[in-house]
Amino acid sequence: MLIADLQAMTDNASDPAKVARNVLEMALDYLAVGIDPALTTICVQSALPALAEMTLLSLNYVSVARLERNPTVKEEIRARGFERDVPAGFLCYPVAQAADIIGFAATLVPVGADQLPMIEQTNELVRRINRQAGDSVLAEAEAMLSVAPRLPGIDGQGKMSKSAGNAIALAATPDEIRAAVRAMFTDPGHLRATDPGRVDGNVVFAYLDALDPDQAEVEELKGAYRCGGVGDAVIKRRLEDLLQALLEPIRARRTQLVRDRGYVVEMLRAGSGVAHAVTQQTLRRVRDGLGLTSFA
Amino acid sequence: MLIADLQAMTDNASDPAKVARNVLEMALDYLAVGIDPALTTICVQSALPALAEMTLLSLNYVSVARLERNPTVKEEIRARGFERDVPAGFLCYPVAQAADIIGFAATLVPVGADQLPMIEQTNELVRRINRQAGDSVLAEAEAMLSVAPRLPGIDGQGKMSKSAGNAIALAATPDEIRAAVRAMFTDPGHLRATDPGRVDGNVVFAYLDALDPDQAEVEELKGAYRCGGVGDAVIKRRLEDLLQALLEPIRARRTQLVRDRGYVVEMLRAGSGVAHAVTQQTLRRVRDGLGLTSFA
Repeated sequence: MLIADLQAMTDNASDPAKVARNVLEMALDYLAVGIDPALTTICVQSALPALAEMTLLSLNYVSVARLERNPTVKEEIRARGFERDVPAGFLCYPVAQAADIIGFAATLVPVGADQLPMIEQTNELVRRINRQAGDSVLAEAEAMLSVAPRLPGIDGQGKMSKSAGNAIALAATPDEIRAAVRAMFTDPGHLRATDPGRVDGNVVFAYLDALDPDQAEVEELKGAYRCGGVGDAVIKRRLEDLLQALLEPIRARRTQLVRDRGYVVEMLRAGSGVAHAVTQQTLRRVRDGLGLTSFA
Repeated sequence: MLIADLQAMTDNASDPAKVARNVLEMALDYLAVGIDPALTTICVQSALPALAEMTLLSLNYVSVARLERNPTVKEEIRARGFERDVPAGFLCYPVAQAADIIGFAATLVPVGADQLPMIEQTNELVRRINRQAGDSVLAEAEAMLSVAPRLPGIDGQGKMSKSAGNAIALAATPDEIRAAVRAMFTDPGHLRATDPGRVDGNVVFAYLDALDPDQAEVEELKGAYRCGGVGDAVIKRRLEDLLQALLEPIRARRTQLVRDRGYVVEMLRAGSGVAHAVTQQTLRRVRDGLGLTSFA
């Protein structure tokens, strides 16, 4: 797993301290949910210079016009209100992302559906570089879409986002979890338990769909909720119990890890060391394929 | 001295073999004209990952609109006929150039007048990064303009350029030198020695101005040429003798060096090793100044 701190700089250049903080927070989250660094290499983008070099190399194989057409970039430029003041790094980030994939010679990439244009951009670069090299130095990547849909924000406004304040953190305290579930968007027309309620767009049901181990009971509840017979309190109580049980051990592990930051930093260094070797090897293969001599 | 092979890729992405070849050619030229690697570090850009990282970091501190306004880039995009198909790497190359200067913490940069916008771009980045760091982690750079004007191409059409075929190579044979001087643009209206001739725009005089150790005699010749009394054969003969004497020892050293490519490659590796340490140190200072943690 790659913690993309350099990419985070493309829209946080005026707050690098936040980027630095989030590297550790993300590593803590990964470890807290049970990712085992003995099985999964966790590494940091800025510790892998081969990715920066691969990005610069790849930028020569894509036009400015092509980057400006990238639907994800277009949407995010709009959402951030960058317009003509879009930082060059932001326009180039699909190439940096492609280099992250290419650098590891990844062929299967777990992404959300909104990231499919990034895989497309990656494969365009792979084909362009292979054509230039006259050889298959790189393999195309395939997207691995999750079967679980993305969880909505608790306000029902788009996806969860810390900065939008509509997320539940993995480190949330029991009180924060309770407050978040209470504030969750359900059906504004469902004022009394006996009123018929809407299930679609109801954030509580979206979470129950994704997390409840007893999906048969969830279906029953949905039926009753639709007809009018189940209050918000009932479904919110069910979800809160579920979230409290789910997050309690994660929070406990996280609390313990926070006390041992030295271990987390060391884990990131070790993982980055492993990733460094892999990415250097890919860079060398690409450079050799293109006929570029290495003087490093 | 930095051999900017990655930058050469920004407009030679479809001919990387040429870029690889030119790295060695340039190193041969440097050594042949007498640059002593014991006194001057000669290094290769692609062997210095800190420059790639500094480029990516810096791209976040400049807008796409600012890059598009760069007069040198605008002019070169026009000259190359890139238009909307300009490679992203080409648009970004002023930032890569700035990173080359920043990476060495250079304060004095020898450039041609056409490169002044690059120094301006560099200093904009230096100020932006210092402001972000809240500290002077980088110093501004100053241009060092040569007192000798740029030599024109032998056809009088702009600057010398190998690809335009109007250059005299340092490795040119005596015959090639003779042919180049004979073909030099003088004054198309100066048909007979007795006709008055133009000195301005006359390539032979431009070279004599730049290279002849006896400038008093050159001034005398100019006077006579203007009045009509000196034929092109005379000034061309003088220049040819000068160039033959100037280039003979350079060509001899070059011929010897070509036989020992292993030495040249080793020299570039050693120089790049020295430069690697310097550029890593600057990168570290910038990252520390911005508050970014290093996991490498």
